[in-house]
Amino acid sequence: MKLGRLNHIGIATPDLEASIAFYRDVMGATVITEPFDLPEQGVKVAFVNTPQVAGELGSVGGTQIELIEPLGAESPIVAFLARNPAGGQHHLCYEVEDIAEARAWFEGQGKRILGPTRIGAHGTPIFFLHPKDMLGQLTEIMERPHGAH
Amino acid sequence: MKLGRLNHIGIATPDLEASIAFYRDVMGATVITEPFDLPEQGVKVAFVNTPQVAGELGSVGGTQIELIEPLGAESPIVAFLARNPAGGQHHLCYEVEDIAEARAWFEGQGKRILGPTRIGAHGTPIFFLHPKDMLGQLTEIMERPHGAH
Repeated sequence: MKLGRLNHIGIATPDLEASIAFYRDVMGATVITEPFDLPEQGVKVAFVNTPQVAGELGSVGGTQIELIEPLGAESPIVAFLARNPAGGQHHLCYEVEDIAEARAWFEGQGKRILGPTRIGAHGTPIFFLHPKDMLGQLTEIMERPHGAH
Repeated sequence: MKLGRLNHIGIATPDLEASIAFYRDVMGATVITEPFDLPEQGVKVAFVNTPQVAGELGSVGGTQIELIEPLGAESPIVAFLARNPAGGQHHLCYEVEDIAEARAWFEGQGKRILGPTRIGAHGTPIFFLHPKDMLGQLTEIMERPHGAH
């Protein structure tokens, strides 16, 4: 296992539109995707791009901020928002070359994997690891989008 | 204000050495700095470098993971670890070109700044913003190291 690129930081929010306005108007983000539903994960999503170098606007090379709002009452982030009403840091996501190999690696390390491998917000296979096995961090592992770098 | 590079994600841990071993042995990190004390912040610190592209080991271009362990009983992360005994995501840090300009910007936006501007782990001026004013995220703003990119 080789440490992959930190693809994004997931930020849970009770109000996606307000969070987009915050990143645009207060933080100065210029590249924010249109919100879209991700019913498989029970969330509504928008990505904020960060630049590689401060001031280099429009770069898509940096770790993204993934804003996630609950989609439906069964959303897995409802409980997180009940504990953190203003929202907050929800998960980290690292890229790997091969999702099956990564899954086997973490299983071999005795780490609890949360559910099946499925398609994530970037259209590639992902899975989540239990925060209690990952230094308190809910960790997403995603297969690197082919041709994206 | 222009959104700057996401410099690092701060991860609080009760055991810095165990966390370094985790990133090296489980996550596959190859570039981890030697731990050092940062008495001004009340923490002991080590940085884990992440690559820009999965598998491109040794790159220093990615958002870093900043592992922080309490330094002394007065450490500001003692309370966080009491709530999160296994550790977890503690703060995010964005780069800016000019720390005084950024401080004036956030003050003008009515955001609460936690204490004076001081020297951070990368040797440049930093300040922290109150999580309740920042979508639940404790946010560090740091002046970009000159010549580092």
